[in-house]
Amino acid sequence: MTEHDFAKVNRWLLPDGVDEILPPQAFALERLRRELLDCYYRWGYDLVMPPTIEYLEALLTGAAHDLDLQTFKLTDQLTGRMMGVRADITPQAARIDAHQLRRDCPVRLCYLGAVLQTRPEGPGSSRNPLQIGAELYGHAGFESEAEIIALMLETLRIAGVVQPHLDLGHVGIFRGLTSQAGLGPDAEMRLWDALQRKAGTEIEAILAEFDVAESLYSMLAALPELSGGLEVLERANAELMPAQDCVHQALRELRSIANALQHWLPDVPLHFDLGELRGYQYHTGVVFAAFVAGHSHEVARGGRYNHIGRVFGRSRPATGFSADLKTLFALSDRGQQPPVLGIAAPCDDDAALLAEVSKLRQAGERVVWLLPGHEAELHELGCNRRLVNLGGCWQVKPA
Amino acid sequence: MTEHDFAKVNRWLLPDGVDEILPPQAFALERLRRELLDCYYRWGYDLVMPPTIEYLEALLTGAAHDLDLQTFKLTDQLTGRMMGVRADITPQAARIDAHQLRRDCPVRLCYLGAVLQTRPEGPGSSRNPLQIGAELYGHAGFESEAEIIALMLETLRIAGVVQPHLDLGHVGIFRGLTSQAGLGPDAEMRLWDALQRKAGTEIEAILAEFDVAESLYSMLAALPELSGGLEVLERANAELMPAQDCVHQALRELRSIANALQHWLPDVPLHFDLGELRGYQYHTGVVFAAFVAGHSHEVARGGRYNHIGRVFGRSRPATGFSADLKTLFALSDRGQQPPVLGIAAPCDDDAALLAEVSKLRQAGERVVWLLPGHEAELHELGCNRRLVNLGGCWQVKPA
Repeated sequence: MTEHDFAKVNRWLLPDGVDEILPPQAFALERLRRELLDCYYRWGYDLVMPPTIEYLEALLTGAAHDLDLQTFKLTDQLTGRMMGVRADITPQAARIDAHQLRRDCPVRLCYLGAVLQTRPEGPGSSRNPLQIGAELYGHAGFESEAEIIALMLETLRIAGVVQPHLDLGHVGIFRGLTSQAGLGPDAEMRLWDALQRKAGTEIEAILAEFDVAESLYSMLAALPELSGGLEVLERANAELMPAQDCVHQALRELRSIANALQHWLPDVPLHFDLGELRGYQYHTGVVFAAFVAGHSHEVARGGRYNHIGRVFGRSRPATGFSADLKTLFALSDRGQQPPVLGIAAPCDDDAALLAEVSKLRQAGERVVWLLPGHEAELHELGCNRRLVNLGGCWQVKPA
Repeated sequence: MTEHDFAKVNRWLLPDGVDEILPPQAFALERLRRELLDCYYRWGYDLVMPPTIEYLEALLTGAAHDLDLQTFKLTDQLTGRMMGVRADITPQAARIDAHQLRRDCPVRLCYLGAVLQTRPEGPGSSRNPLQIGAELYGHAGFESEAEIIALMLETLRIAGVVQPHLDLGHVGIFRGLTSQAGLGPDAEMRLWDALQRKAGTEIEAILAEFDVAESLYSMLAALPELSGGLEVLERANAELMPAQDCVHQALRELRSIANALQHWLPDVPLHFDLGELRGYQYHTGVVFAAFVAGHSHEVARGGRYNHIGRVFGRSRPATGFSADLKTLFALSDRGQQPPVLGIAAPCDDDAALLAEVSKLRQAGERVVWLLPGHEAELHELGCNRRLVNLGGCWQVKPA
């Protein structure tokens, strides 16, 4: 690129959907990061720090077509192999559980890191979320889901995201019905897509095209309507009566989790949506998302994704959740807190001053040197006090 | 990629030079991160979180040919423009100072984030360092360098990197001499390269080729030998006597900084190396690096890079340092500390148990649920105590 080319562009403009955090918000976000990772630690979740890039095969495990499209591709100059910039940390955590840790007991992992996505997931969405999440490997029972969902809601509570409600679904219901209907992967994908958009006539057209039996037709067409409170599970039991057993098993799992959540989180409204499958490409069981009023996208989501570790040599039950820390931060009031004001110190090479500055910093104070030529800029430096020499002794005085 | 292709590769293998941090090291590294960012905060440095990707022009400011080669390139699918994955956060901080903050007073910024590099800088080097650093904008005096160098050494002290020594140089000496000798940019680059390798005969060949005057020849050829303690500055005053004034100005700046450091950091050995220019592509003045015994690369480095903000609309004096947090961590003993042991809780939906678990976690304890089927795996879960129900009351007992 020539100097001339340089001059033509707005060098400071960030790409669409790419954002950055500036002072004083950045340190407030850092504090939230710490509280959340500390919480995960106390819940028994061990922090992992997988790399930003990996070979593409490692990043794109499972049937994650969406993830493939979302992943930036790079050539490794050392080997010529394709690498990807991670668009999701969950498959990396699964790789670590399956290949690096290789434990037989339940393994709890958490992470926080930047991910990149080729396109925003929706209007106004970030292409560089700060993904935070927790994953639980090695246990297939509803207790794992209840724990993960409780931790997801604890995350929202700590972030100050108020009055979330929880959406629950189960990909086994849709998959059980399409398998019973004999739909191939392509038709299943088209139907999935139509269901995500709740496109009634399109759903009917696909089902008619494949000559799906009357009873299955009714059940698949009913999915978008199976949405509401706990009573949805009763209605589903009735309306999906002719379904094969795996569908009823899925309904029983939802019921167990609902019972556990009513016990663990009595204040959180539960909403069931058996036709809502958006964004759950590698999931195999119960899926869930948290919503808040005034925010069109979910603020956190997760679900069960058993067997993702199979390609890494070990098939393990798995469930987990993740969220974008920047979204949680934006929904909290943490960015509005007034900054801590510091103490200005004159540039003076008196050894007693150096010692005093060091002592104040150790005590947690912010102490900023007033560089020559800028002695009067206390306010600009965020200081409301200054160190002054009173009879050979350095003391903090109001500015 | 087909299922067959998937089967052919080791899906768990990370690319060469790409590493990840696993438990329990990851949380120990997180603790170090916090201590360092807290330290920077107390020194008056505000945290910034620039994005992992930007348009290439924004990332490759200044005369940073090396940085261009080190930067992974991506196409923005939304605009077709070239983006880069940052290989260095310093130019991002300069952009933020020049364009986003636009303050006239000195601005102190710090950051910590993953960067990616197309090739390792040296054998065994990471291609995905966790870059940590601090930058000071808006002041051109030696007091800024002294503050930044002191903060760099405070960083090493906190990380537990013992007995570092400090190398100091000044790119103005080399540039002043080559400009005086009338060397063009190409010849300057070749000579720079030869000097970096201290390739004596090559240096002589280049100088002979360009018919450099005898006195300048002697001065340039002398640079690699101007290496040692404070006495090097005296020798340089003598040996570089015929140099133009900017060279002497550079020597005076080094002397001022040396004086300040002897006052601020009396215990840190100073080493001057006037022919050492490695890795300082965008620097314009004093450059410095910290070394420790047994580690061939510098463990932290920095220098003055005035005017980098010019392309962003504001030319500001600038100095700063950075390091790889993973390198600092590896040199410390923080990875060896024994893990904190937790308390195991049985899966029991007694409300009193839930309350007790919550209370213990709030008190800072790590409490891990024993999932059904794994009730005996306390040790594997890192627990040395358990919650037991004694007469209706939940109590913590040794396992």
